[in-house]
Amino acid sequence: MRYVYDYDEEAPGGRELLGGKGVGLAEMTALGVPVPAGFTITTDACRAYMANGKQVPEGLDEEVGEHIARLERVAGKRFGDPADPLLVSVRSGAAVSMPGMMDTILNLGLNDVSVEGQAASTGNPRFAYDSYRRLIQMYGEVVDGVDAHRFESALSSLKAARGVANDLDLGAEDLRELIRTFQRIYEEEVGYGFPQDPREQLRRAYRAVFDSWDAPRAQVYRRTYEIADDIGTAVNVVQMVFGNKGESSGTGVCFTRDPSTGEAGLYGEFLVNAQGEDVVAGIRTPEPIERMRERLPEAYAELVRTLERLEQHYRDMQDIEFTVEEGTLFLLQTRTGKRTAAAALRIAVEMAEEGLITREEAVARIDPGQLDQLLHPMIDPTAEIEVAAQGLNASPGAASGQIVLDADTAEERGKAGDDVILVRWETTPDDIHGLIQARGVLTAHGGMTSHAAVVARGMGRPCVAGCEGLSIDAAAGTVTIGEHELRAGDVITIDGGTGRVIVGPVRLVPPAIDENFGTILGWADALRRLRVRANADTPEDAAKAREFGAEGIGLCRTEHMFMAPDRLPVVQEMIMAATEEARRAALDRLLPVQQADFEGIFEAMAGFPVTIRLLDPPLHEFLPDPEEASSDAMRARIAQLHESNPMLGTRGCRLGLQHPEIYEMQVRAIVRAARAVAERTGAAPLVEIMHPLVGFGEELRRLRDLTDRVAAEEPSVEYRCGTMIELPRACIRADEIAEVADFCSFGTNDLTQTTMGFSRDDAEGKFLTFYLEHGILERNPFEVLDQEGVGELMKIAVARGRGTKADLKMGICGEHGGEPRSVAFCHRIGLDYVSCSPYRVPLARLAAAQAALSEAGVTAVAIGG
Amino acid sequence: MRYVYDYDEEAPGGRELLGGKGVGLAEMTALGVPVPAGFTITTDACRAYMANGKQVPEGLDEEVGEHIARLERVAGKRFGDPADPLLVSVRSGAAVSMPGMMDTILNLGLNDVSVEGQAASTGNPRFAYDSYRRLIQMYGEVVDGVDAHRFESALSSLKAARGVANDLDLGAEDLRELIRTFQRIYEEEVGYGFPQDPREQLRRAYRAVFDSWDAPRAQVYRRTYEIADDIGTAVNVVQMVFGNKGESSGTGVCFTRDPSTGEAGLYGEFLVNAQGEDVVAGIRTPEPIERMRERLPEAYAELVRTLERLEQHYRDMQDIEFTVEEGTLFLLQTRTGKRTAAAALRIAVEMAEEGLITREEAVARIDPGQLDQLLHPMIDPTAEIEVAAQGLNASPGAASGQIVLDADTAEERGKAGDDVILVRWETTPDDIHGLIQARGVLTAHGGMTSHAAVVARGMGRPCVAGCEGLSIDAAAGTVTIGEHELRAGDVITIDGGTGRVIVGPVRLVPPAIDENFGTILGWADALRRLRVRANADTPEDAAKAREFGAEGIGLCRTEHMFMAPDRLPVVQEMIMAATEEARRAALDRLLPVQQADFEGIFEAMAGFPVTIRLLDPPLHEFLPDPEEASSDAMRARIAQLHESNPMLGTRGCRLGLQHPEIYEMQVRAIVRAARAVAERTGAAPLVEIMHPLVGFGEELRRLRDLTDRVAAEEPSVEYRCGTMIELPRACIRADEIAEVADFCSFGTNDLTQTTMGFSRDDAEGKFLTFYLEHGILERNPFEVLDQEGVGELMKIAVARGRGTKADLKMGICGEHGGEPRSVAFCHRIGLDYVSCSPYRVPLARLAAAQAALSEAGVTAVAIGG
Repeated sequence: MRYVYDYDEEAPGGRELLGGKGVGLAEMTALGVPVPAGFTITTDACRAYMANGKQVPEGLDEEVGEHIARLERVAGKRFGDPADPLLVSVRSGAAVSMPGMMDTILNLGLNDVSVEGQAASTGNPRFAYDSYRRLIQMYGEVVDGVDAHRFESALSSLKAARGVANDLDLGAEDLRELIRTFQRIYEEEVGYGFPQDPREQLRRAYRAVFDSWDAPRAQVYRRTYEIADDIGTAVNVVQMVFGNKGESSGTGVCFTRDPSTGEAGLYGEFLVNAQGEDVVAGIRTPEPIERMRERLPEAYAELVRTLERLEQHYRDMQDIEFTVEEGTLFLLQTRTGKRTAAAALRIAVEMAEEGLITREEAVARIDPGQLDQLLHPMIDPTAEIEVAAQGLNASPGAASGQIVLDADTAEERGKAGDDVILVRWETTPDDIHGLIQARGVLTAHGGMTSHAAVVARGMGRPCVAGCEGLSIDAAAGTVTIGEHELRAGDVITIDGGTGRVIVGPVRLVPPAIDENFGTILGWADALRRLRVRANADTPEDAAKAREFGAEGIGLCRTEHMFMAPDRLPVVQEMIMAATEEARRAALDRLLPVQQADFEGIFEAMAGFPVTIRLLDPPLHEFLPDPEEASSDAMRARIAQLHESNPMLGTRGCRLGLQHPEIYEMQVRAIVRAARAVAERTGAAPLVEIMHPLVGFGEELRRLRDLTDRVAAEEPSVEYRCGTMIELPRACIRADEIAEVADFCSFGTNDLTQTTMGFSRDDAEGKFLTFYLEHGILERNPFEVLDQEGVGELMKIAVARGRGTKADLKMGICGEHGGEPRSVAFCHRIGLDYVSCSPYRVPLARLAAAQAALSEAGVTAVAIGG
Repeated sequence: MRYVYDYDEEAPGGRELLGGKGVGLAEMTALGVPVPAGFTITTDACRAYMANGKQVPEGLDEEVGEHIARLERVAGKRFGDPADPLLVSVRSGAAVSMPGMMDTILNLGLNDVSVEGQAASTGNPRFAYDSYRRLIQMYGEVVDGVDAHRFESALSSLKAARGVANDLDLGAEDLRELIRTFQRIYEEEVGYGFPQDPREQLRRAYRAVFDSWDAPRAQVYRRTYEIADDIGTAVNVVQMVFGNKGESSGTGVCFTRDPSTGEAGLYGEFLVNAQGEDVVAGIRTPEPIERMRERLPEAYAELVRTLERLEQHYRDMQDIEFTVEEGTLFLLQTRTGKRTAAAALRIAVEMAEEGLITREEAVARIDPGQLDQLLHPMIDPTAEIEVAAQGLNASPGAASGQIVLDADTAEERGKAGDDVILVRWETTPDDIHGLIQARGVLTAHGGMTSHAAVVARGMGRPCVAGCEGLSIDAAAGTVTIGEHELRAGDVITIDGGTGRVIVGPVRLVPPAIDENFGTILGWADALRRLRVRANADTPEDAAKAREFGAEGIGLCRTEHMFMAPDRLPVVQEMIMAATEEARRAALDRLLPVQQADFEGIFEAMAGFPVTIRLLDPPLHEFLPDPEEASSDAMRARIAQLHESNPMLGTRGCRLGLQHPEIYEMQVRAIVRAARAVAERTGAAPLVEIMHPLVGFGEELRRLRDLTDRVAAEEPSVEYRCGTMIELPRACIRADEIAEVADFCSFGTNDLTQTTMGFSRDDAEGKFLTFYLEHGILERNPFEVLDQEGVGELMKIAVARGRGTKADLKMGICGEHGGEPRSVAFCHRIGLDYVSCSPYRVPLARLAAAQAALSEAGVTAVAIGG
């Protein structure tokens, strides 16, 4: 088996074999883009290493040796040459991008002797010593696990002793002293001196990269982004080019379009006289890419030309790393760039308009989950706010929360349901678990491409980065933001769309939807087969749902109308009624208010169907706690209604069958409302009356009789009558249910509970969390539909229901109706519509279109690399 | 459409068309058995009448008129002839026997004029007047709904006035006076005089019989015995023969074998100078049939010959009604006789041994549900009892309970779970709802064939009838039993196997199983394919299960071992443990006791498999109520463990996965016990370790790993490892589960709960009861497996599980494993075994054999008619 390929060789595989970085360098080489020479050690090698109990596979070291020899010939330099040594970088590169998660070692090949040759051959001793001290530091951290802070504090001490603020202000002799200090630290920590043999350095370096695949932070990242554990990483060994060779050198990262807004044109940052790590790690705050035009005009022009070529080639926005070595441009990496949702939309729309991609591709390319970002709260423009500090607008959206100063606390408090903002000097990959649980992130250091910014954008969390007005005393638990002295636990608000930081909570509002959003969703609407409805219980929700493009209401829960403070006493009176007469009297008072609710909803949804679910929860949910009961009679009634498993008790249609007067009132309110709206507006609402929790055809048959009987007593109104499918038995007996149902709507929350025997209340935070943490389940089935279990039952229901009634209208109104993978599943099994919360409607529209495209063979290009 | 058939005509249908009585009379006519002439109005006519809004179908009255004309020719008498009138009986007769439920009118055709002709032509005025007063009474009650008590009290007043105790002591003039009184009662109640036109009497009579099909008591009976409402009844119009024509006349009921014991030879009762109603209604206590040999020797000999012929013809025990009119025998009815379980077994065994039926037929003929009777408690033979009164041993089994004096109270208290004995002068069909809920029945009047006796036998309830030492003052609520004065609410014990009545409670024991029981079950064992196991948690239960023929334990619940008073504190200590160490220490103390339990069970089940289910219930079930908690820590733990739907919470394998130390202890106890028993007895137990509540293959995979790992730490023992299938998801994913399971056992209690979304605790007595009462469900799905819903999921599981592993052992261990229809279903879907409570094992063995026979085309002959 062959494990190593030069970039100018044809390899027998792409991204899966070479990783994203490796495949990019090979492709760029083929395109004639200026890249340094080098080779890739494949993911096969990493997998073999893992499978082999962390032993490199037979022959790998020799194969690497042969490719080093070739590299030496191409570079005209020898590895370990004391006069003019060949230096290489060693970088991980998996098939799926894991920014900042994997390890990099630069300047590999230097030792105590060749550093002097390098100093002499380049005529730049400061550069040579700086390169060597960086190697010792990175190698020590990555290969031998030396604590980074020991090197950092030695550097800080030296700067303090010399009275300088910036690394660049240290001279060659200072760095030479630093090398000695670093070597002492290395020896103290590791037990032997820093390895002087470049081939040994290399062998140990790529083993360390393989090992980093298994590091806890990489595991957390993979779990968060659902990346398989067994794909492994490739390793890239690339001839070093140096951005730190003086003022005609530099390094940068750059996007072909703005990853925040999607605006066309170069977007990025660079640093003169620096190596790449300085940019990515966010330790020095870099300059905008435009300034490069003045400072390195030729290299800049070359960069612009190269990036145009790359974007045309890859037909997508590219995220590249480059270095300018004494005026000459080298691209170190290209990959499809991560982007905010807004940028994704704009880029997709503009590329389609430019003719670079088709509309179908534009639609297929948007990650529906990312749309959520656009719908995140923003600071209310009318709110009076005082900006305490300003940072970079690193990830859009606004959030208020209590300050926490470390990732562990952020994780703990966030899981407990607290709103927290993680406030840090900078974040590192080790902070990932805290970022996941925080409402937002604020950092003092780092730019738009710093770790915190990249991760926050990916997760749709607001992030303000590089906020210079921020300083942190973690030991004292205090934070200074501009003029304000705050403590951990105080509330701040960040606006990741503008970079503003505000002390205290601020009123937030949802953002308006921009033109690109409408364009993409318009294209999506033309492509999808699934209809998209919303779950909405009030006229306000219904209006919001229409605004987001909902084509009807798939679930209007009437119990929320019962819970309103002005109605609850009447509802309680109804429940407490000693006689049917008294109960009917209370219901008579509820009828007009419920009718008014329905009228508002029908008007907001004019022209679209509205599915109203009759009362579902058990009656005891409307009564107070026994201790708060106002009378012995009420306590007795509460006791009488008590259930040991209310989820499986007297609710839904069981309630409606036992207390027909309740459903009669609701049906009457619905048909009267429909009639009133028809008369007022001249257009009859499309009414669908839905009976919950049906398990037996006979239940629905009787409720349909009740519905038809009551409706017949009122002025004539058209309506459909159907049921939810939320019990396994209803799936199994859908043939029988379809005999009496005009439509069926899957209630997959309850269906998941009963199919799995999981009470959501008792599972989440308890055994379900344990299952997810221990990998017994991969996903929370209440968030992502369990296609293999619950989904199989749905398939059975569709087959049997449509077997009885070929045109039976079937939909879904559980929370899964707005989850992209679940929407795709609903498309595949042939449902007619999905229904979800109003804010998820755009996402469902897009997911539905992508499901249709996927069926037609158009799939998304994986974004990232 | 033709609606009427004479008995000597060929009809185009059998029992369904002519009813049981009609088809019996027609068959007897064909066999040459002496029966009176007559005809049947078919069930078609009844159904047409019902469908037609209670209007007789076109032409029926005319058709009846033609058959009356033919009957007149055959009988040589004319209907309404003033000198020598033709009299007929009008009786209902449905396809399915409903003893006492339907109506009969005798002597129809008499009027004020013809009664005198009858008196003259028979030379027996007393007989004629008695016949007429009976006609007025029955016709008044049946056709016009006159209150029976008015007639009865008029008769009682007359007897009191004449100073006589017995109806027979009233003379002709007395009866003439009674006729006038009855006619006055009739006119007062109905509004006009008693109809004098025999054809009008007849027309109204058969309408009344049709109407009686819909009477509430008939509806209750049909619901209890699951008889369809729409089959309707036939009506038999038969020439009257008179058992009340003096000392050479009589009437009786008789079985070809003893319906209580099954002993061969005539068994029955007769009354001289009486009509049939006197026997059936139990108002006069009749004489044993043997005495007929002396009193009516020729008729008796004819009866014996006739009954032999009938039993040979029908190949089953017959229940007949006969009348002797002045020495001549007439059979009025024959049907397959109802019998006790003991009698059913003996009759089946003896008929098979006589060669009358095959062994397969013998097995097919036993109603498995009836076997329960044999397993009902009996009075402990060692108990010292004082018999307060003695009655007839009308239905076997013994029961203790509080006295209740009316059926409504019996129903109410019985439903509330109280043990009650219904104590009545006699029972009537209107008492059926009380009989259903009572533990037993005690009556002062009536014989072995009285209503109470027949119904109680059918339901397997103990009954002591005709207890002369009993008298009741319902108004005062007092009862006299022998020398004892008791009140409603006092406890008595009845022994329906001996007729004994005891004051106060008595120690009861289960009955021994007789030889016929063993014989039939032995034959059944040879015929069945399903294995039968028992659910047993203790060595005692296991021994009992073996005694009943269980071939292993299908479900040994380990939690009951945790609940024992000496262990619960240790279990609580384990649950309260603050550290894993402390928890393991508590578990270490539980290990030996649990091991000892298992050893006992393995020894009792030597040679048969024992399936042990690891801990299933949530931990909070082992802790006290919060108010009874002994410490704040315990209260906190109880609160922490609280679940809103514990049925769907942290239990079963979810518990085992989160607290592996518990399952580890259990597995260790099992394998150590198996090893110890193997060493002690030389035979290794057949151990099956069962993990509960699995819904995902991965759960079982991990638990199997745990099991194998712990077992590997102990001395080697063979075992199988499997799971319960009790969640819909487990059914759907049985293919995946089968990859790691050696066996799967359906837990249909939980599977029913989750498939239907019914919490048994919250359903029964609440909405499920409502559903059953209102016909939304036909059967309680926790008693009889829901084959259409739960059963469909089981079929899917069998297909998918065996798809992965063709020889996957599959069984059922829910309560349905002992319910005959459910057992038959398990056979049909190809399960390997059923498991049920020890007392139900014989029933399951029989049901399993019948399922196999049914598959082979051998089905039971319907018993009754």
